[in-house]
Amino acid sequence: MSLWIGLSLVSASQALAEVKAYRASILHFTGDPARLGEQAYQYFQDGALVIDNGSVRDVGPHSEIAKKFRDAEWVDYSGRLIVPGFVDTHVHYPQTEMIAAYGEQLLQWLNTYTFPTERKYKDYDYARKQSRFFIDQLLRNGTTSALVFGTVHPESVDALFDEASRFNMRLIGGKVMMDRNAPDYLVDTAETSYAESKALIQKWHGKNRLLYAITPRFAPTSTPEQLAAAGRLKAEFPTTYVHTHVSENPSEVEWVKSLFPERSGYFDVYEHYGLAGEHSVFAHGVHLTDSEFDRIAATRSSIAFCPTSNLFLGSGLFKLLPALDKGIRVGMGTDVGAGTSFSMLQTMNEAYKVVQLQGQKLSSLQSFYLATLGGAQALGLDDKIGSFKTGNEADFVVMNWGATPLSKLRNKNSKTLQEKLFVLLTLGDDRNVVETYVAGKRVYRAK
Amino acid sequence: MSLWIGLSLVSASQALAEVKAYRASILHFTGDPARLGEQAYQYFQDGALVIDNGSVRDVGPHSEIAKKFRDAEWVDYSGRLIVPGFVDTHVHYPQTEMIAAYGEQLLQWLNTYTFPTERKYKDYDYARKQSRFFIDQLLRNGTTSALVFGTVHPESVDALFDEASRFNMRLIGGKVMMDRNAPDYLVDTAETSYAESKALIQKWHGKNRLLYAITPRFAPTSTPEQLAAAGRLKAEFPTTYVHTHVSENPSEVEWVKSLFPERSGYFDVYEHYGLAGEHSVFAHGVHLTDSEFDRIAATRSSIAFCPTSNLFLGSGLFKLLPALDKGIRVGMGTDVGAGTSFSMLQTMNEAYKVVQLQGQKLSSLQSFYLATLGGAQALGLDDKIGSFKTGNEADFVVMNWGATPLSKLRNKNSKTLQEKLFVLLTLGDDRNVVETYVAGKRVYRAK
Repeated sequence: MSLWIGLSLVSASQALAEVKAYRASILHFTGDPARLGEQAYQYFQDGALVIDNGSVRDVGPHSEIAKKFRDAEWVDYSGRLIVPGFVDTHVHYPQTEMIAAYGEQLLQWLNTYTFPTERKYKDYDYARKQSRFFIDQLLRNGTTSALVFGTVHPESVDALFDEASRFNMRLIGGKVMMDRNAPDYLVDTAETSYAESKALIQKWHGKNRLLYAITPRFAPTSTPEQLAAAGRLKAEFPTTYVHTHVSENPSEVEWVKSLFPERSGYFDVYEHYGLAGEHSVFAHGVHLTDSEFDRIAATRSSIAFCPTSNLFLGSGLFKLLPALDKGIRVGMGTDVGAGTSFSMLQTMNEAYKVVQLQGQKLSSLQSFYLATLGGAQALGLDDKIGSFKTGNEADFVVMNWGATPLSKLRNKNSKTLQEKLFVLLTLGDDRNVVETYVAGKRVYRAK
Repeated sequence: MSLWIGLSLVSASQALAEVKAYRASILHFTGDPARLGEQAYQYFQDGALVIDNGSVRDVGPHSEIAKKFRDAEWVDYSGRLIVPGFVDTHVHYPQTEMIAAYGEQLLQWLNTYTFPTERKYKDYDYARKQSRFFIDQLLRNGTTSALVFGTVHPESVDALFDEASRFNMRLIGGKVMMDRNAPDYLVDTAETSYAESKALIQKWHGKNRLLYAITPRFAPTSTPEQLAAAGRLKAEFPTTYVHTHVSENPSEVEWVKSLFPERSGYFDVYEHYGLAGEHSVFAHGVHLTDSEFDRIAATRSSIAFCPTSNLFLGSGLFKLLPALDKGIRVGMGTDVGAGTSFSMLQTMNEAYKVVQLQGQKLSSLQSFYLATLGGAQALGLDDKIGSFKTGNEADFVVMNWGATPLSKLRNKNSKTLQEKLFVLLTLGDDRNVVETYVAGKRVYRAK
């Protein structure tokens, strides 16, 4: 009988342990603060987040939640801030090892640094090792979901997804399709890219939390035949993503015009081949015209805004607020390795600067919205991640408000939530991330 | 007799202890790498720096120095990098506590955030406490010299200099002169500003390593009478500095035109009142015209380039390389509180981006030159600081090459000095500063 009781207790405590409650200041969004004002977010200064078996069960003031979930396993993060895990809508994992490569704008940068590096990812073991490092970088920066470029090699995608599976991450990735204007060692063909992408889709798309993105690098490195093949794939597997670049750099835009003279513009190339749409994410869009913005909006396509990259490569200033005003879904992207940081805080810092240089203002609330729910919306995943809506997948970050003497001082003398968040994003970095949770499990803890 | 031997040993070891030798990788400059190429710098991968009683005695390869200074007290920083202490050519210490203030461009930012904050510095004790925090921020970022704005209150300067004296820092500061277009609680008059500045000059200028800067805030907040008084001070005390702002923001430039319609432009206001010259440092200069650049060059005035601030306030992109091409001396400035970091590495990171956005390249060597010797030259102090020339004052920083898993990886796979420095400045921050020395004494050590 004592044995029976023992077993029963274990099993009862396991059942209880599945419900965990975290006490902290909690912030999450229901929409864009620039549109909805105070309706756009919930902030509980003394709040609690309840996670049940990897999903959000409840969120609210601690006083209420404490009564409802007396028997949950409580974790006290009082004085800290919990936000939904950051969503990085554009990043190249094989470029992690070449971040901070000197001196070039886009096209020369690709030839000089990127292509030779990506060559190495044909080797699964190498790619796996680098995937591990990459995912560690995401988690230590509080990023729990990302839309990720691999290389042209299917092995690069297998390695990334194998590694992401260890953490049950909600990750989207794909093999690069690239059949011209790149070194011989790095090109596929319209046919092989179709076949390899299709095999990867069948293997990975929808497996656990993983999703597949059809990933033509950008129009200049794909023949019309390959873009048509990408379009066929998208038609065959309509729930997959399309992930590519558009209008990042003026020379690139001119190049596309010369390669596709029959199309009205850069974005029209993608639209023509059936690659625009609700699950299509276009990185950068710095030089999109007003009418191209209209087409992005009309096709319900998304843009990944990558400020540290746009500044680092001298690409230009993305028209963020005009894009949002057109109803375009925009997420934040680090775009490592052209971006200079995995930190979504540093990305927000430079996003603010890009907007300031255009004489406009990006509020801290809107920044945190874009880095969480906004990113999830850009990926069409806001029914799963990006906020603490009941039933959502439990990806979240525990942050401290200040990690250095300066940011502690500045947080202390901040009066409003908006001000505290602005200090956090302006002075913050990976040091502000204390713990990161994916699907309800802690996967990173700062030393 | 044993007592006598004991004393003798102590005194001999004290004499020896005055010569200290530091083994590390050592980099310093003799000029601008963009002009002098490899002649512009010395780099000793396994080097040594010899400090004798607070001054540089020698620098070179460790193998040579080790033979010459066998009896020195050796400190082994092998694997680390020693560079001259960074020189911050423009920073406002009272704005430390309001860094990262949201949402405004220059003129509104001053009214909304800056003036109410500066009011507090009338109180010496408060100013002293904040000075302590400020100087700690400099030192933990490897900055050993700075040209510093106080507030309108003489107390703010006394506090700053009292605190800098504790470390025997080479610091330049001054009381703000401001007699219009500012709140009543923050203005002086032409007469009081002259008298107070004069008293501060007599008290502080040349005391130990401290130097005084005549500091009219900027043309819009000084009457012609006050600018004339500033010019008289400069004429009376020709070795003092002039420290002010010029052409930071388009609205400001227009305002100056309307306030001084008789002058040909913003810079001409200062030149007219006798405030241009070899010891005059003008912060920003983002919107200077080509002919104003010529006048800056002709008067041997300097410019403080403040990239994080220019982006944060949306001021614009300083034409760094064109200014240098005209022979203008340019130093780097953090411009905290409008700048977003005390780190000269982060300042270099954004300097690179500002230059990239103009389609030009700023090399890592040139960046480190600007942050050390270039800054010293801009302040006319290159016979004292900014390099390891024999006899120079021994201000230096011991840095690690990588402080995070990412920067360690990236440093490891870098092949050249240029590449390593570029990674350091792109990914680096205060964590890369291990120890800071001022006048031969260690004044900061990372925990």
